[in-house]
Amino acid sequence: MARERMGNVYDAAKQLSEGKLVVIYDGDEREGEADLVVGARFARPETVETMRKDGGGLLCVAIGSGDAEKLGLPFFTDLLESSGSRLAAMACAKTAYGDTPAFSLMVNHRNVYTGITDNDRSLTITKIDDIVRSAATASGTTMAEEFRKQFYSPGHVFLLIGRGLENRRGHTELSLWLGEKAGLGAMVLCEMLGSGKALSKEKAKAYAKRKGLVFVEGKEIRAEAERL
Amino acid sequence: MARERMGNVYDAAKQLSEGKLVVIYDGDEREGEADLVVGARFARPETVETMRKDGGGLLCVAIGSGDAEKLGLPFFTDLLESSGSRLAAMACAKTAYGDTPAFSLMVNHRNVYTGITDNDRSLTITKIDDIVRSAATASGTTMAEEFRKQFYSPGHVFLLIGRGLENRRGHTELSLWLGEKAGLGAMVLCEMLGSGKALSKEKAKAYAKRKGLVFVEGKEIRAEAERL
Repeated sequence: MARERMGNVYDAAKQLSEGKLVVIYDGDEREGEADLVVGARFARPETVETMRKDGGGLLCVAIGSGDAEKLGLPFFTDLLESSGSRLAAMACAKTAYGDTPAFSLMVNHRNVYTGITDNDRSLTITKIDDIVRSAATASGTTMAEEFRKQFYSPGHVFLLIGRGLENRRGHTELSLWLGEKAGLGAMVLCEMLGSGKALSKEKAKAYAKRKGLVFVEGKEIRAEAERL
Repeated sequence: MARERMGNVYDAAKQLSEGKLVVIYDGDEREGEADLVVGARFARPETVETMRKDGGGLLCVAIGSGDAEKLGLPFFTDLLESSGSRLAAMACAKTAYGDTPAFSLMVNHRNVYTGITDNDRSLTITKIDDIVRSAATASGTTMAEEFRKQFYSPGHVFLLIGRGLENRRGHTELSLWLGEKAGLGAMVLCEMLGSGKALSKEKAKAYAKRKGLVFVEGKEIRAEAERL
């Protein structure tokens, strides 16, 4: 992809490939929310600390649906629906902004202590990236077993499963699309919060500028995805 | 309970009953972690903001096991084990600090927008408190149905189920014990994080002092619970 064509989207993919954070704003018509995003392999403890402090939301790890299948990971709503209990009635069919949730399980790597510290979340996140990258070349059965061996649930890192940009326009899909262009596997996301509400688009943009990060919008990414 | 007997524990319960935050440190032998704690009915958007900024961990809501049963809420590990799938192998039997996890479902009130903002989490948390207090006098069947009507899953607030101080010495049980003494229902908890690791006991103590909050230790609460 030539730089001329991609512009800002190219810059975002480039920054991600270099291990930097980028800010992705989904769009006024959707959540109206900016997320801090980074490649999971680059999630050092300091990165986790920056994301939780400057973001303020949940630290989640997005993986593609093909990888989720290989690792034996269901959507959380599917887990509730298959529980055979009345909890199935709680499964969120559609959020207020119109999408089905991307959540899968919440996990910790088995070598963590509490699971919530920057060191522990960094370990869990980078190990998820390792196994996602191994899954690319290994058989599903082996990898799902390996995943259950390495991780337990419930934990403190929230897995998200991407449905592909053609099906859903969330931060999950936007970051995975950029990550793929950057040659990355799993992606880490954290919502940027302001007082009471989501951090405004203007403030998220100003934050990105101050920190030297690319600020990219969902519509730019989608336009580029359609063009390619 | 006379003030002379309870001392610091009494002060903590009193602050909680007045809607203030307290800091609970579990113990060097366990997580070695301080949590910010407040009664769920007092979780205004500003309270949520303070907890996520000054704590840095997950915002969780603890309820007693009797209430959880009335609301039809299982432990998360039970949900995994009853899934009839291979995910049962991921259910955490014991954390590194020796306990089984307290996690139940992650939920949002159905009236939220994204679920993660201070306003949305405040709504979800205070509505959980409302229903927990209603459950105290209503029948289980009605309340479980009402809970599924009011909340969906997956969401952005993490429910914890207390097993009672005689069975588990976690922040979940410690805060519920204090909350009961303060005449409260559900309790909100957030882990206090330092760079990389849990915030040290000394720093958590200094934070409490600076903010005029009671700092109380698990061993003080357990000693008082055994005496009563």
